[in-house]
Amino acid sequence: MKKIAILGSTGSIGTQTLEVVAANPEELAVVALAAHKNVALIQKQIEQFHPKLVALSDKAAAEELKKNYQGPCEILAGPEGVMAVATYAEADTVLGAMVGYSGLKPTLAAIKAHKNIALANKETLVAAGSIVMAAVAKEGVKLTPVDSEHSAIFQSLQGSNHGEATKIIITASGGPFRDKSLQDLENVTIEECLHNPNWVMGPKVTIDSSTLANKGLEIMEAHWLFDMPYDNIEPVIHPQSIVHSMVEYQDGAIIAQIGLPDMRLPIQYALSHPARWHNAFGHLDVTQLSGLTFSKPDTKIFKALALAQFAGRQGGILPCVFNAANEVAVESFLRGKLRYLGIAELIGDTLEKAEQINNPTLEDIEAVDSLTRVRAREILAERYK
Amino acid sequence: MKKIAILGSTGSIGTQTLEVVAANPEELAVVALAAHKNVALIQKQIEQFHPKLVALSDKAAAEELKKNYQGPCEILAGPEGVMAVATYAEADTVLGAMVGYSGLKPTLAAIKAHKNIALANKETLVAAGSIVMAAVAKEGVKLTPVDSEHSAIFQSLQGSNHGEATKIIITASGGPFRDKSLQDLENVTIEECLHNPNWVMGPKVTIDSSTLANKGLEIMEAHWLFDMPYDNIEPVIHPQSIVHSMVEYQDGAIIAQIGLPDMRLPIQYALSHPARWHNAFGHLDVTQLSGLTFSKPDTKIFKALALAQFAGRQGGILPCVFNAANEVAVESFLRGKLRYLGIAELIGDTLEKAEQINNPTLEDIEAVDSLTRVRAREILAERYK
Repeated sequence: MKKIAILGSTGSIGTQTLEVVAANPEELAVVALAAHKNVALIQKQIEQFHPKLVALSDKAAAEELKKNYQGPCEILAGPEGVMAVATYAEADTVLGAMVGYSGLKPTLAAIKAHKNIALANKETLVAAGSIVMAAVAKEGVKLTPVDSEHSAIFQSLQGSNHGEATKIIITASGGPFRDKSLQDLENVTIEECLHNPNWVMGPKVTIDSSTLANKGLEIMEAHWLFDMPYDNIEPVIHPQSIVHSMVEYQDGAIIAQIGLPDMRLPIQYALSHPARWHNAFGHLDVTQLSGLTFSKPDTKIFKALALAQFAGRQGGILPCVFNAANEVAVESFLRGKLRYLGIAELIGDTLEKAEQINNPTLEDIEAVDSLTRVRAREILAERYK
Repeated sequence: MKKIAILGSTGSIGTQTLEVVAANPEELAVVALAAHKNVALIQKQIEQFHPKLVALSDKAAAEELKKNYQGPCEILAGPEGVMAVATYAEADTVLGAMVGYSGLKPTLAAIKAHKNIALANKETLVAAGSIVMAAVAKEGVKLTPVDSEHSAIFQSLQGSNHGEATKIIITASGGPFRDKSLQDLENVTIEECLHNPNWVMGPKVTIDSSTLANKGLEIMEAHWLFDMPYDNIEPVIHPQSIVHSMVEYQDGAIIAQIGLPDMRLPIQYALSHPARWHNAFGHLDVTQLSGLTFSKPDTKIFKALALAQFAGRQGGILPCVFNAANEVAVESFLRGKLRYLGIAELIGDTLEKAEQINNPTLEDIEAVDSLTRVRAREILAERYK
């Protein structure tokens, strides 16, 4: 039985991970949970899954939980609490599903505490891929991807020699705006963005999906996870979200993973690998598939994707800059302070002002992440008021 | 370097196998070739590939070759010659690409001579799957599939535990008549049949593709190759022939192999497995794919498929009967002695008269194969004159 700690248990991935745990009681047990501040939900999760340790990064929320909850589970507060969950002695596997850059430190701490990592938090690899992958190699832990695309790539790489894979074909639904022109996108509202036709996700990821910034982040994630050059990672628009991604080999064969767009499947595979467990999540009837299409994304319209590819190819500190600028831009858009097309503009303007650092340390990354957020807000204040 | 003998070197699979050999001179060498009677082509093949032994099963053709050819390659004639190629001491791998039932004995002989087998000759497994698979297990040789569908299934099974595969989804182009009604098929000509939109194949396989008898044979082949119950092998019409087949696992993931419809790819994989070799056969650009569709075949129209599934489920000697009846029916159709829809009728009538043998020996199979051919011709003479 695997004993898992979940970072971000009240989010979209976190709650679906708990569904996977509930569906596999013989295989999985939850020993520790960390979340931000959803007291009501974490309390339900404690009652259902009986973790021994829970942390809320929001200290006020943690205080509230301590007042409400009577039981044996230890409650911790603040970032130190989250670190305690990430390194909890009884856990052998940490599922990292925190949102954005905040997942980096706990994930690194978990790796250093010799936990196997199931990683949903792509920003961790985007901002600090070289550091995280070096830590994974040094500690000899296993890193499995949770994102549906990366899980599909990971699955498609099983059973072949890694050096024989020549291309990763990463699919993107294209989001709700895949057929729009730049002009159409001028007046897009938050509500239109938050409606993703295929996947139920949190707001940050949903906006990122609509701008294709998400695909850009995923390309960087794939670069690190699978040691593949950027030139050999091809984003492809596949609106039906049935083919979750593919790997091309040097003999011309393409191996793909196909299935219902249900995050519980890749979450489960990240925890079951190399085994596959039976589940009752619903299986795809391929005879009902028709009109599956694949096309190149238009990076003149979805500029955030081109900017991500640029940042990835440049490497060094630029992926961290891209990520921080994107987080500020999305947050600003969600608060109504930035128009939709301004997201990519703000990322581009912020990247332009960045200074490259070729082999950034964790300290560099932290400093540049903070600096970039300040800069992005300054640019925003100046240009987009 | 693998030293290969090819059974059926002048046929469609044979000549494409030689293209694969030519493309991989560091990896593959041809040491022996067997063919039926195409003297001109085998002579060219001897000149290009320098085998040490060649056999033509047609004795007159072998005599002609002996007259024409001056060189070090030994020329043999008749079925004994083919057996000598199949068991040739210097070969480590035998690619079996003879047409129909005739491939069974040489394939078994090759297995008993400890050759690894790359098998294109599906009738061998259809007629005598239990015997062939027992021989493969006993001799500890490797059996790799050459058929594009079985290669795709084989590729999709790499890297997962076999017991976790719950379904084989075997795709079929549906042939040139996939959208036709029974009435449409009443007056189909040989020429219309021989036009397969996606694959270049020999006439027997092309007709079998159009009736879906080929998919029926492939289902039986898959049953034996992958030890999968018939209820868990689902034929699916996929007119674009891009997804070559799929495997569903118990967690709901489907793994598929995708690529251009080019037989050289599965031929090469059958010879390179578990490695994949670079080649220049042309790679699929997935961004050009659109309108991929999948649907259930209509076994009320394509009755040969339903008959094959029936014969497979019954097991015993009935797959052998199905195969022999189908070979007679296709031959009769190609000679203009049977109308198109008569192919399935003749198979059905012949199956009805068959007596089951539950655990047939090779002798049983040979006797029933001969008897079935006689019976099928009698039924044909009686009912379809």
